[in-house]
Amino acid sequence: MVGAGQLARMTHQAAIALGQSLRVLAEARDDPAAVVCSDVVLGRPDDPVALAEFVRGCDAVTYDHENVPAEQLAALAGAGVPLRPSPQALVHAQDKLVMRERLTGLGVACPPFAPVGSVREVRAFAAEHGWPVILKARRGGYDGRAVWQLTDPGHAESVLDSLPGAELLVEQRVPMRRELAALVARSPFGQGAAWPVVQTVQDHGICVQVIAPAPDLPPARAEAAQRLGLRIAGELGVVGLLAVELFEVAPSAAAPDGLLVNELAMRPHNSGHWTIEGSRTSQFEQHLRAVLDYPLGDTTSTAPVTVMANVLGAAELPAMGVDERLHHLFARFPDAKAHLYGKAERPGRKIGHVTVLGTDLDRTRGRAELAAQWMSTARWADHGEAHG
Amino acid sequence: MVGAGQLARMTHQAAIALGQSLRVLAEARDDPAAVVCSDVVLGRPDDPVALAEFVRGCDAVTYDHENVPAEQLAALAGAGVPLRPSPQALVHAQDKLVMRERLTGLGVACPPFAPVGSVREVRAFAAEHGWPVILKARRGGYDGRAVWQLTDPGHAESVLDSLPGAELLVEQRVPMRRELAALVARSPFGQGAAWPVVQTVQDHGICVQVIAPAPDLPPARAEAAQRLGLRIAGELGVVGLLAVELFEVAPSAAAPDGLLVNELAMRPHNSGHWTIEGSRTSQFEQHLRAVLDYPLGDTTSTAPVTVMANVLGAAELPAMGVDERLHHLFARFPDAKAHLYGKAERPGRKIGHVTVLGTDLDRTRGRAELAAQWMSTARWADHGEAHG
Repeated sequence: MVGAGQLARMTHQAAIALGQSLRVLAEARDDPAAVVCSDVVLGRPDDPVALAEFVRGCDAVTYDHENVPAEQLAALAGAGVPLRPSPQALVHAQDKLVMRERLTGLGVACPPFAPVGSVREVRAFAAEHGWPVILKARRGGYDGRAVWQLTDPGHAESVLDSLPGAELLVEQRVPMRRELAALVARSPFGQGAAWPVVQTVQDHGICVQVIAPAPDLPPARAEAAQRLGLRIAGELGVVGLLAVELFEVAPSAAAPDGLLVNELAMRPHNSGHWTIEGSRTSQFEQHLRAVLDYPLGDTTSTAPVTVMANVLGAAELPAMGVDERLHHLFARFPDAKAHLYGKAERPGRKIGHVTVLGTDLDRTRGRAELAAQWMSTARWADHGEAHG
Repeated sequence: MVGAGQLARMTHQAAIALGQSLRVLAEARDDPAAVVCSDVVLGRPDDPVALAEFVRGCDAVTYDHENVPAEQLAALAGAGVPLRPSPQALVHAQDKLVMRERLTGLGVACPPFAPVGSVREVRAFAAEHGWPVILKARRGGYDGRAVWQLTDPGHAESVLDSLPGAELLVEQRVPMRRELAALVARSPFGQGAAWPVVQTVQDHGICVQVIAPAPDLPPARAEAAQRLGLRIAGELGVVGLLAVELFEVAPSAAAPDGLLVNELAMRPHNSGHWTIEGSRTSQFEQHLRAVLDYPLGDTTSTAPVTVMANVLGAAELPAMGVDERLHHLFARFPDAKAHLYGKAERPGRKIGHVTVLGTDLDRTRGRAELAAQWMSTARWADHGEAHG
């Protein structure tokens, strides 16, 4: 696995059960996966020498991020390295303009978009679709990075001035009900598997919570989202996981199912962390099964409701250490499952997540929120009043 | 963790989620845990130099086997190393005579036993309790090793002659209904947690299957077994897991609850592998929580029935490799969870296990048996007739 972040760290846990040996390409010796894996190659994902050393002897090469440049991927593929997904598929998770054009060509509903290189082009787009508009870098953005909401022409000018030479696109700011995610897996043979569609809750562009299944989602729309995920995986030739981030919108001629595709990711994804406890097969196991061409696993849920909440570094880091916070978390919620990534705390950084299973949506969600907020801030947001 | 077998391997998976860093003391570079952990010290568990290097800087030291000699444990404890469980507790899992005498002193029902050093003493015991008798080495036995069923005086003589100088005890061969196991955990502070009592199915002294919860176990007896486990853990000062292997017998004055203690283990145990998927908290996570003094986790089951079946090396190793067998297993049973230990196959050796969750006992058990037998032999025992 290229990259040694928390996705690789959790993939390693799944690889152990399958009797597989996960090698990671880590940029630093203390990356989340590098500190727990036995087989670590140090190097940058854009360094051809490090990549060549890393891929030697691998049965399959996959990624925990999108940062291997197309040029390096092409060279590896040309040398016969088994890249999963292939560069031809992965480019749709690396380049938002390529993704938008391809999906539009397939008739998949997306927000209106246009490549832009000047304020004039942004203004022309806004004249048709209204202000504000969403500006995105074609490549490299995640967790709200490299995404800007432009409120007016003056704002557009100042942002574009700060990005000389950047390749950009604009999208309509779509009025939406909420964000959903459809997570599917596809094997090289073409077998597909889908988990229940989830709701993702964002705060400043960062996912803070995932609710599985998405509450009150009409069954027809849930099925449409799953079918959409499987169809995109098939059309693009994805091998491994595909996370389709969706906007739920009012149905229209342009979005008859009430769904618009926001982003694609071709790897284990934050919207699927709930599957570790909430599904018979976790996304990490499934990704390995797919890229190693095993038959895919059962995606039946293990509980009526699963809520995953990210633990983000607080704006003011608490004096109490993470490990002591975990003691208190376990004392209050013996059933909460914690996943710590071994990362130093920084404000806004994902340092772990907490998963709570239950039967009642509000109660399960409340417990997961409390748990994650406690782990972030060392404060019980309810001031200790809602015990249990 | 002293030892780097499959127990340490699965403990490592749990440690990753807790943000902990597991160091293992491995005898060989290719031990099951050594191939997946980043922090490996090579050495024997009876080598004081290796142990001293291994324990340096550890917050807690625990074990995946019972093979650290008392002398070394005493030296480590004397040097202030945080051993969990302590040598004073662990000796009851290392020395069957100490265990029997202590439990008897506590009024815990055990099979009748006696230390023996000669055929004369075995004959005297058998004169009181009947042939056959069970001969055991005081130390070092597991999976049916160092245990002999002696049928008559002549047999006793030949076995004892083959064991010059061994420290031995004999026990009555108790007529029993079946074998059970009570798995509990205890923290340094004294918090206890118990999982549902399970039935263990043995073949030639090796556990082949675990059924959770034990079918048709009267609730009062199940509760008595859990209380017994918690009581023994408290009385012996266990920190970490305690597995109490039990015989279910006809209630009598000597065994009013219908339970006799067979063996104790103070570590994650084969009878608890089902908890990885079958319980909200796995035994591996719980052992870590206990030895690191976290509050213990919820032991609620995730399914009405969980069956774990060991994958043992077949008498004749199949031509088809383990990995190819796993492909076929997943094709037939997408919901079966496999755990492979990364060990070379040898007849009778535990190389992995399979867990199946379900609602119907017979069906779940049948699927787990089929799955494990397939993984062992590359043959479907039902000749493909009982699909799904």
